[in-house]
Amino acid sequence: MLPRKDLFELPEGVIYLDGNSLGPLPRGTRELVGKTVSEGWGGHLIRGWNDDNWMAQPVTLARGIERLIGAAPGSTVLGDTLSIKVHQALSASLSLRPDRRVILSDTGNFPSDLYMAEGLIAQLDRGHSLRLVAPDEVSNAIDQDVAVVMLTHVDYRSGRMHDLEAITRRAQKAGAVMLWDLAHSAGAVPLEIANSECEFAVGCTYKYINAGPGAPAFISVRPDLLERIDPALAGWLGHADPFAFEPEYRPASSIERFRVGTPAVLQMAALQGALAIWNKIDINDVRAACLRLSDLFIQQVESHIPELELVSPRAGSERGSQVSFSHPEGYAIIQALAAVDVIGDFRAPDILRFGITPLYLDDRDIIAAVDRLESIMRERAWDHETYKRRQRVT
Amino acid sequence: MLPRKDLFELPEGVIYLDGNSLGPLPRGTRELVGKTVSEGWGGHLIRGWNDDNWMAQPVTLARGIERLIGAAPGSTVLGDTLSIKVHQALSASLSLRPDRRVILSDTGNFPSDLYMAEGLIAQLDRGHSLRLVAPDEVSNAIDQDVAVVMLTHVDYRSGRMHDLEAITRRAQKAGAVMLWDLAHSAGAVPLEIANSECEFAVGCTYKYINAGPGAPAFISVRPDLLERIDPALAGWLGHADPFAFEPEYRPASSIERFRVGTPAVLQMAALQGALAIWNKIDINDVRAACLRLSDLFIQQVESHIPELELVSPRAGSERGSQVSFSHPEGYAIIQALAAVDVIGDFRAPDILRFGITPLYLDDRDIIAAVDRLESIMRERAWDHETYKRRQRVT
Repeated sequence: MLPRKDLFELPEGVIYLDGNSLGPLPRGTRELVGKTVSEGWGGHLIRGWNDDNWMAQPVTLARGIERLIGAAPGSTVLGDTLSIKVHQALSASLSLRPDRRVILSDTGNFPSDLYMAEGLIAQLDRGHSLRLVAPDEVSNAIDQDVAVVMLTHVDYRSGRMHDLEAITRRAQKAGAVMLWDLAHSAGAVPLEIANSECEFAVGCTYKYINAGPGAPAFISVRPDLLERIDPALAGWLGHADPFAFEPEYRPASSIERFRVGTPAVLQMAALQGALAIWNKIDINDVRAACLRLSDLFIQQVESHIPELELVSPRAGSERGSQVSFSHPEGYAIIQALAAVDVIGDFRAPDILRFGITPLYLDDRDIIAAVDRLESIMRERAWDHETYKRRQRVT
Repeated sequence: MLPRKDLFELPEGVIYLDGNSLGPLPRGTRELVGKTVSEGWGGHLIRGWNDDNWMAQPVTLARGIERLIGAAPGSTVLGDTLSIKVHQALSASLSLRPDRRVILSDTGNFPSDLYMAEGLIAQLDRGHSLRLVAPDEVSNAIDQDVAVVMLTHVDYRSGRMHDLEAITRRAQKAGAVMLWDLAHSAGAVPLEIANSECEFAVGCTYKYINAGPGAPAFISVRPDLLERIDPALAGWLGHADPFAFEPEYRPASSIERFRVGTPAVLQMAALQGALAIWNKIDINDVRAACLRLSDLFIQQVESHIPELELVSPRAGSERGSQVSFSHPEGYAIIQALAAVDVIGDFRAPDILRFGITPLYLDDRDIIAAVDRLESIMRERAWDHETYKRRQRVT
């Protein structure tokens, strides 16, 4: 049964509608991180790499990610940041299609993914280009020039969700590689990455997975491709035998070839705490509760605050786990809301973004949040907030 | 006055000669990390990015690194792993010398740096090559074909230290870019990176700087080059205005253009704890004490255990902060030593490696370590350890 507020350390009185940006602290994580610092680092020192399994965690903890996204066992590894994993997946995609020159993405993609593509294109200097189309034009834009289709499954501003299976099929029919960024869907919606047969999936773990600020990213590679790819960023820990200290790079035969440097051990401890919760939760229950709460939120806002315009798709099946509205004073409204302990966030130019996370939200939270939002709108409280903010800036 | 054992949480009775691999836990760090988890993540949630300065830390904490390595203020940023920073520096170096095709390094370099060079060469596919020479042949090997000289200042096996200033001058006279890996020297020996005028310096913070397992890496870029380089791995946080979410990459004018993704916040908290210690310490005192303790260690080993052969340079001025010996049973001897609470480490094929870290080691530790090592050698205790280990493996 959801919610499971008992599984989190939530600040008293706060209604947190920003789990799509940074998930809250899972109970037990504080102790796991503390133990890693005191007993592991402090007590075991260098021996922690083996005795506390620090070296293996990027692979062993990835089992939990695989279950959450429906990826094949052994297809996933943790490490670095999402941008680095995007670079590795993009670089591998281009090497799999040496005769094609286009990276296709959409205007709703998160800018960092687009920047990484631009950066890679400039670095390679081989005539590749980044083609951007509107989200609903992606399928039709996949032609024989496209080496890789790189999309974020759920749009970070609107919450609009692509049809992962259909676009993957379309890409592969056109001979293109499919790369999904699951930043806004892992831990939010049920996924069947293995069944989709997409070549690459990447994501972060600090949003819906709740692994904390700076949590490691993941990359999943379709198993049949693993040994065909010489990974970019060919680091020490991607070597077949790192501790042989051979002078020449020889990639591991497993997904470990996508490892680069030493793992962020304290962040891994936090991720371990987060995954412990996911062992107790069925993602299908999360999805069902999310749709119910999201519909309630939309209905409440539209009936009480008609001046907010829905930006997210109205149909739940086309939405991820967030609901967004637009308003010209969006920034100031989000600030005013925070002042009354309702945390949402703002995305330029005018988006009010609310994460609907049923692990730790219930109907009363949704109704209370809309109630406070309505008061702010009625009292034009954002004017005051805007005033205060401008005072601070100048 | 050194040592300052009071500044660390050291396990009772352990003599730790592996600070060159993973530094011990600085006192106060446990609390800083705990506070970041509980009050920051748990209490402030998404607001931690601003209220707790998580977003700024890769730059603000880099000030402490700059002081430690003598880099220009504003030339250094923290993030990712050392291998990623090597990739960025190498890629930038090659773009600064588009008419040259050789990356010159030495056979004593850490393998990961060489792997990253190999990986970049394969990825670029533009006819670059990696030329490896013996450490003492580097200067003579710098010719007009060399785009970049990439060296690790202190050899991870022998502790041999390159003449940073002389090689940098030689490289630049030949028109090559100079890239130093300071993994084994930052926090161990006094450095004057700005005075050396080298183009790039990179390093990690988990060894002599004591920032913990998985601590972030750093990169320093000579300030006059900053705006001339389009950084590889062009991520979100290297953008001039990340929160404008512009579709096109526009690099920050500062060193922040070498940032990629979101910082590892828990690791940054640990680094903050480590840097607090360095505010109280003069690196010149560390160097002086290190040379004294290292000479004592060599003298004790050579007079009591003549079967161990010194691998490190005998002259302190040519050594970093470690002393290495060789022995065919090196691996087993290091295991036997650990069983009596003296932690060193082993590097293939036959190197016994001992970090001499005067922040938390004194004469009595050195003498006691050699005493226990001598007992092991006299009793051939490693045979027993080897036997036990083989039992475990089979």
